[in-house]
Amino acid sequence: MKTKVELTVPESLRAYAEGFIATTPEARMQAVIDWSRGNVERAEGPFAAGVFNLDNGSCIAAGVNRVISSGCSVAHGEMMALMLAQQTLEVVNLAEKGRFVLTTSAQPCSQCFGAIPWSGVEAMEFGATRDDVEAIGFDEGPCPENWRELLEGRNIRVTGPVMQKEAAAVLQEYARSGGNLY
Amino acid sequence: MKTKVELTVPESLRAYAEGFIATTPEARMQAVIDWSRGNVERAEGPFAAGVFNLDNGSCIAAGVNRVISSGCSVAHGEMMALMLAQQTLEVVNLAEKGRFVLTTSAQPCSQCFGAIPWSGVEAMEFGATRDDVEAIGFDEGPCPENWRELLEGRNIRVTGPVMQKEAAAVLQEYARSGGNLY
Repeated sequence: MKTKVELTVPESLRAYAEGFIATTPEARMQAVIDWSRGNVERAEGPFAAGVFNLDNGSCIAAGVNRVISSGCSVAHGEMMALMLAQQTLEVVNLAEKGRFVLTTSAQPCSQCFGAIPWSGVEAMEFGATRDDVEAIGFDEGPCPENWRELLEGRNIRVTGPVMQKEAAAVLQEYARSGGNLY
Repeated sequence: MKTKVELTVPESLRAYAEGFIATTPEARMQAVIDWSRGNVERAEGPFAAGVFNLDNGSCIAAGVNRVISSGCSVAHGEMMALMLAQQTLEVVNLAEKGRFVLTTSAQPCSQCFGAIPWSGVEAMEFGATRDDVEAIGFDEGPCPENWRELLEGRNIRVTGPVMQKEAAAVLQEYARSGGNLY
């Protein structure tokens, strides 16, 4: 058996994300939507997410869905962004290093929803909705119906949908491209 | 920023898990409890999980909680076991390679609960309960109240608690050792 898990995002995201400053939900969402479109062009899932510093707008980590290329069902865009942010800042609880937001191109699935409380982000903002995601055949999983209130109750502010039309358009592009649903 | 996430489990687990055969819930749980106790001795979280083949009892992957050593809030025992199993068998959906069970020393938190439907396991069995975990100060997160029915509704059989007393004893040992709660 293996004793090491390796998960990567494309090197091209490093150049995009490093030095990138986005101080509004719309600016952050535009970046994340661009990354998700790039992921469709690579024939991977149409999802991306980033972790941004809320005080200065800097991008800490850029994640895209890598389920297919990494052979790992955990490798959703949000999980990649959170793991990369934590390993970049060398801290488990991001709140120890500042005020961070997870910006994701689509409403988190059950796994990513459940992971957010452990990450130390103080806010989450999303683009496309659960309905948009499920409309193209993806499954969002068994999220609690009151997921938004549950995050807010843990002092994690939720904003969205942000730029829903633009985010959902990438999902539609993926569906038209005949992309794998998993 | 980093573009690669690396997560490992101790090499000692490889020797333990390879060739290990467990055809009953109790035999699998005993192994997982042993791994969780080893993790307490390493001053990491008191949690472990494994993926086993339900037809021949073979152990596919052994996972332990690596949140502290990997600096990553995602690295729960269940997530490590699922990711290692998928990367060992080189398949995203484990169901394509056989019938597998996720055996975990404690009831999954919100993240791990939400990840199970994407993994391809056809069953999950747990040792200690949510109450046992929260009794020593860990947070299980915002799981749906009917989590068990939600998994069963997706054709993932749930068994447990299995060997609850023995599994909870490891949690208590961790609490007595003054282990980090996160």
